[in-house]
Amino acid sequence: MPDDRTLGVAMIGYAFMGAAHSQAWRTVHRAFDLPVTPRMSVVVGRNTDAVTAAASKLGWESASTDWREAIARDDIDIVDVCTPGDSHAEIATAALAAGKHVLCEKPLANSVEEAEAMVVAAEEAAQRGARSMVGFNYRRTPALAYARQLVDSGRLGTIRHVRAQYLQDWIVDPEFPLVWRLRKELAGSGALGDIGAHIIDLTQFVTGQRLTGVSALTETFVRERPLPAAAAGLSASGTEERGEVTVDDAALFFGRLDGGAVASFEATRFATGRKNAMRLEVNGSAGSLAFDFETMNELWFYDGSLPAAEAGFRRILVTEPDHPYVHAWWPPGHGLGYEHTFTHEVHDFLRSIVDGVDPVPSFRDGLGVQRVLAAVESSAANGSGWVDIPAR
Amino acid sequence: MPDDRTLGVAMIGYAFMGAAHSQAWRTVHRAFDLPVTPRMSVVVGRNTDAVTAAASKLGWESASTDWREAIARDDIDIVDVCTPGDSHAEIATAALAAGKHVLCEKPLANSVEEAEAMVVAAEEAAQRGARSMVGFNYRRTPALAYARQLVDSGRLGTIRHVRAQYLQDWIVDPEFPLVWRLRKELAGSGALGDIGAHIIDLTQFVTGQRLTGVSALTETFVRERPLPAAAAGLSASGTEERGEVTVDDAALFFGRLDGGAVASFEATRFATGRKNAMRLEVNGSAGSLAFDFETMNELWFYDGSLPAAEAGFRRILVTEPDHPYVHAWWPPGHGLGYEHTFTHEVHDFLRSIVDGVDPVPSFRDGLGVQRVLAAVESSAANGSGWVDIPAR
Amino acid sequence: MPDDRTLGVAMIGYAFMGAAHSQAWRTVHRAFDLPVTPRMSVVVGRNTDAVTAAASKLGWESASTDWREAIARDDIDIVDVCTPGDSHAEIATAALAAGKHVLCEKPLANSVEEAEAMVVAAEEAAQRGARSMVGFNYRRTPALAYARQLVDSGRLGTIRHVRAQYLQDWIVDPEFPLVWRLRKELAGSGALGDIGAHIIDLTQFVTGQRLTGVSALTETFVRERPLPAAAAGLSASGTEERGEVTVDDAALFFGRLDGGAVASFEATRFATGRKNAMRLEVNGSAGSLAFDFETMNELWFYDGSLPAAEAGFRRILVTEPDHPYVHAWWPPGHGLGYEHTFTHEVHDFLRSIVDGVDPVPSFRDGLGVQRVLAAVESSAANGSGWVDIPAR
Amino acid sequence: MPDDRTLGVAMIGYAFMGAAHSQAWRTVHRAFDLPVTPRMSVVVGRNTDAVTAAASKLGWESASTDWREAIARDDIDIVDVCTPGDSHAEIATAALAAGKHVLCEKPLANSVEEAEAMVVAAEEAAQRGARSMVGFNYRRTPALAYARQLVDSGRLGTIRHVRAQYLQDWIVDPEFPLVWRLRKELAGSGALGDIGAHIIDLTQFVTGQRLTGVSALTETFVRERPLPAAAAGLSASGTEERGEVTVDDAALFFGRLDGGAVASFEATRFATGRKNAMRLEVNGSAGSLAFDFETMNELWFYDGSLPAAEAGFRRILVTEPDHPYVHAWWPPGHGLGYEHTFTHEVHDFLRSIVDGVDPVPSFRDGLGVQRVLAAVESSAANGSGWVDIPAR
Repeated sequence: MPDDRTLGVAMIGYAFMGAAHSQAWRTVHRAFDLPVTPRMSVVVGRNTDAVTAAASKLGWESASTDWREAIARDDIDIVDVCTPGDSHAEIATAALAAGKHVLCEKPLANSVEEAEAMVVAAEEAAQRGARSMVGFNYRRTPALAYARQLVDSGRLGTIRHVRAQYLQDWIVDPEFPLVWRLRKELAGSGALGDIGAHIIDLTQFVTGQRLTGVSALTETFVRERPLPAAAAGLSASGTEERGEVTVDDAALFFGRLDGGAVASFEATRFATGRKNAMRLEVNGSAGSLAFDFETMNELWFYDGSLPAAEAGFRRILVTEPDHPYVHAWWPPGHGLGYEHTFTHEVHDFLRSIVDGVDPVPSFRDGLGVQRVLAAVESSAANGSGWVDIPAR
Repeated sequence: MPDDRTLGVAMIGYAFMGAAHSQAWRTVHRAFDLPVTPRMSVVVGRNTDAVTAAASKLGWESASTDWREAIARDDIDIVDVCTPGDSHAEIATAALAAGKHVLCEKPLANSVEEAEAMVVAAEEAAQRGARSMVGFNYRRTPALAYARQLVDSGRLGTIRHVRAQYLQDWIVDPEFPLVWRLRKELAGSGALGDIGAHIIDLTQFVTGQRLTGVSALTETFVRERPLPAAAAGLSASGTEERGEVTVDDAALFFGRLDGGAVASFEATRFATGRKNAMRLEVNGSAGSLAFDFETMNELWFYDGSLPAAEAGFRRILVTEPDHPYVHAWWPPGHGLGYEHTFTHEVHDFLRSIVDGVDPVPSFRDGLGVQRVLAAVESSAANGSGWVDIPAR
Repeated sequence: MPDDRTLGVAMIGYAFMGAAHSQAWRTVHRAFDLPVTPRMSVVVGRNTDAVTAAASKLGWESASTDWREAIARDDIDIVDVCTPGDSHAEIATAALAAGKHVLCEKPLANSVEEAEAMVVAAEEAAQRGARSMVGFNYRRTPALAYARQLVDSGRLGTIRHVRAQYLQDWIVDPEFPLVWRLRKELAGSGALGDIGAHIIDLTQFVTGQRLTGVSALTETFVRERPLPAAAAGLSASGTEERGEVTVDDAALFFGRLDGGAVASFEATRFATGRKNAMRLEVNGSAGSLAFDFETMNELWFYDGSLPAAEAGFRRILVTEPDHPYVHAWWPPGHGLGYEHTFTHEVHDFLRSIVDGVDPVPSFRDGLGVQRVLAAVESSAANGSGWVDIPAR
Repeated sequence: MPDDRTLGVAMIGYAFMGAAHSQAWRTVHRAFDLPVTPRMSVVVGRNTDAVTAAASKLGWESASTDWREAIARDDIDIVDVCTPGDSHAEIATAALAAGKHVLCEKPLANSVEEAEAMVVAAEEAAQRGARSMVGFNYRRTPALAYARQLVDSGRLGTIRHVRAQYLQDWIVDPEFPLVWRLRKELAGSGALGDIGAHIIDLTQFVTGQRLTGVSALTETFVRERPLPAAAAGLSASGTEERGEVTVDDAALFFGRLDGGAVASFEATRFATGRKNAMRLEVNGSAGSLAFDFETMNELWFYDGSLPAAEAGFRRILVTEPDHPYVHAWWPPGHGLGYEHTFTHEVHDFLRSIVDGVDPVPSFRDGLGVQRVLAAVESSAANGSGWVDIPAR
């Protein structure tokens, strides 16, 4: 394949998200027909040995400990930011300034201010042809992309209710250590920004509506934990020393959408037995949808236009060639997995680059989510009183 | 309410089935609008004290130990036969000869010969206005009655497959005693006649087709059990002495229906964890149905005429006023229970008596099931070879 | 059965709740062993013809249009209040003053003030041996009674989360008429008091904890509806004239429990496709529970003490003889229905009368729920700000 | 990475199975730690243009139209046979003779005779260090590998029942064309060999027992179809000309296992609405398991040793690091997809090669399945009479 049809990728960070993104970069052109091929040029991390090992294992051509050097390389077209939230703004802004296309993990940043600066950078860069996207990968779950199509085509009528939950249980044990996701200075917030951000984005994506205000409560059930020895994915072991948990364990909030619906949200890492239960239910005047990521190949659709006697939530196996993304994969009933959401995300990003259009969700969409996160924190800090969310 | 609008009922037997039937006789006219009212006149059993206590508990006006005397009473219009299968033929035939309407528990009899005699008696009695019905109560589950409607109206197209299972686990423990249901001379057969009979009847009822032949295997996993001390419902305790189990613990068979479908059946009391999983799945050229009695208020319907992308098995909550029998009960979503199948059965029986028509399932329908049971036993006894089932 | 072992019952009101209660009074002593028998003496309504017809249909010995006269009768021991909420206080208080035992439908009253007066009346009457209970029938669902046992025995550890929803859809159609449940002066509130009251009570019942404060939002999606022509159960037809809906269609709130858990609530009549989805999920440090009334015979239990590899939400069919109330009914897997919750409620009420103890939920428990309802309305009316709930 | 740690792979065939295998070869060493790396050296097909395009798309270094030449290459260590069943014997035997390790798709062959010859070839080659494995990929579904562990450790006690179904619906439409899978000379049989083979293998794998005899029925519902224009995966379009369907559309059979259990089987392509419902239920004296590939990340386990009141089928999300294969992937609740079964298969195959042990399922295991398929066909052709299955 000729060089001018490849795009060099530098990935910053190589932990859980890095592994998932690597699988996507490796696979996307094998599954989808694309006029370009990503070249997995360089992966960047802080520890030389570790990043070198990661490069070899994950299939990157080279390893680096200097992200600035990596994004300065002429043969790098795309920068994929997979670091904790505290470095998103700096890296993404620099990469955009260097003329690179940027895919940035969510949440976009650790504050509204950072996110606003990133939007400015992204929109200026877009003038020069650099594309940017925030990594709300769950939008690319075929069932949720199809949910959006159903709502968009009017099958649900006027939306009345959204019921969004993201339930995990990986820190129920009070001896689970104080990993970076439990430290505000690195992660920005806890369950709220990590998983709450996803259900905020999905609510706005699937309904096509914007949250205009919220009332919220947050809670930290376990306020002190052992300092960590080592971590991998979402598991880790601890030491004898203890430190303070500075983020929320759980966030509960409700709000209003600009189309007239009301919405309830719950993000928690203390829902014992729920491993990755990202659930969305949408009720409209003409129908309803329900989804749970633990059964990610299923979308439940209630068509209210049918006679009452034969109506019911139907379990659509979202594995048909007519469903979003599915034509690239296997026959009906042969389900996809978590990692496919990243492959689809990278596909859409590459397609946008090729087509010269701005991908979604944009950094501005990411800023929108950031504003909801900030409103939630503000309400929770002020007796759960209502907090309006500015449109822009 | 004037006497001429009441119908006197004598119930023979008062154990598990007797309790369920009593609930039905007591309730039917309270839920449904009927021009007649059943009078719970007399319950009959072998032990004076026990039947007297049962009468008081279950709400019968009197108790008797002589079924012949009971059916001879002028004020008795209906005889409800709830005894083990070995006495069905004698009691039902005598009651019909006495001009009574007869509701007889399933299976109709313990042999084809007995069943044939009962059909002759029933059809002669019908000439004189006496109605007879066999108690395949599960037909009156609203979900299954609605399933029949869907098939009948062509929503499934040409039926290709039936997959019927009746799975229980109440005798998995080898120390469970040798109750009457495990003795051939009383019960006729084991899982086959007790629960296999239901899925045979339901297959023929829901599809509107007849089984034309079968190939079968039966098995008795535990061949010796303690003799019973006392029993209630499906639970019991045992003594030190042991006796031989003379019926099947499980029966597996497949067959062909006269409309071209193939069907598989399994009835067992050894499906650990399955309590009353009477399951039916029907696949047709245009759609499919699935049902499990453990969630008896749900019918799953796949409408193959929908576009592939939005098709899926839909969970119909069969609790709408438009569903069979449901208008008499509660609002949508407020489910019914096991006992309602008997109330509906008694409703349909009374309605047939009032309207002067022959109820279904008739004794002839019961004979049809008996012939299938006999064919299953014959095949199982002869190397699983195919056995044709005569039409009449 | 001698007179001194019967208890005369007067039921006030005979619509949906009246039918359900009648079924319970008729059945309770047939299923359960009780030393007393209820006598269905008189049913009371406003329209002579209608109440007479109801008496005949539902099995009451007589009908009356004067509730004061009915409760004054010497042969009446129990008054069962099934009217809309606006008359609860007057009838219940009068009945207690007349020395009767009182079962009062929920919500206890239409205001905290009324409820407080009823508590005073009940506690004074209790001194004289008159028992009172509020009809939160769903507590008597075997699965929920068993859920309480599991929490009480510590199987869930420290409770962290409650997620309670009561979702219905019977007024999604804007042409559904303005029945009494949509009028504040009769019903007190809308979804909040009608179905939200149940999930508040169940949360407090299952966890054994008290809500200490809430933040809330309510919404009325359809603000004008046709005036009603006739109604039955939850269905009705409308006329040309329109009136204002004066209650909430939906209520969303979250709160804190006095044991440290956080809880989210949602009650709505606009969840298209959800017929009676009363759902409760409880997450504790050692385990979790999940329930949905649409599959009322199932309780899902996650035992966090098991090794991770074999842990999972287990579907307990709450139909075993060891489960609460179930011994009175059918063998395992033969499920119960909605109406059984009332039979169990009446059983517990009668048992308390016989045993001379105060039944639960007491009027004071009902007042506790009323205070939560009031706090929800107050928060919703004041920008969703936090509202504390007084303990007594 | 040095040459001596890579293994050259030649893949014969590149359609549906070829795409799935390619994904596995590309991914295996990225997910798992392996001391060897597969090199995707050459893919072989009959049409030059098509195989060249496939090589480029799927990531093979070169393309060839001569499988004999490909397997003769010195740099090829592994031959992966993904062709229709009629060429398995010839290619696999030649590859083994050439000293290559062979992975052969299932069913092993189109006849017992071919399979026997392949076993001879495999066992001779094993003497010389060449490994061979048959591609029953579903064994490598984590849930099913874990099911095997549970049975093996005695958690189910004595196995009483297996209930195995493989339900698809891709040829319900009579206009679906006559693709190679519907022609006996290429595919050997229809649903029986294609999907029935999987549930036979899984039954023997999960129980650790062998089928000793069967009774069977097969059916071809649509006997003539359009000749195909083009095909991809399991979808295709047709022409005007028609040809005879020479394989079964559905196969139903039951049998006995050498440990005393009875088993029922059903394989069909006419189960409307069932897309890839490969279901397995196993009931033992101490517990039960249930699985459906449409929800492949779930295994349902009933532990009969628990008290009845708290026992229930528990939904184990087989996504924990302790579950087979899962440590290589994502955190709990982040499910896997169909393609992972092939990655796991290739992992185990490579690991066996490295460790110098014979992988399972062996060609002899494949022959065992072939003998069951032959017995099913024999029984179906002879009035469903019992056919014994020889042990070797």
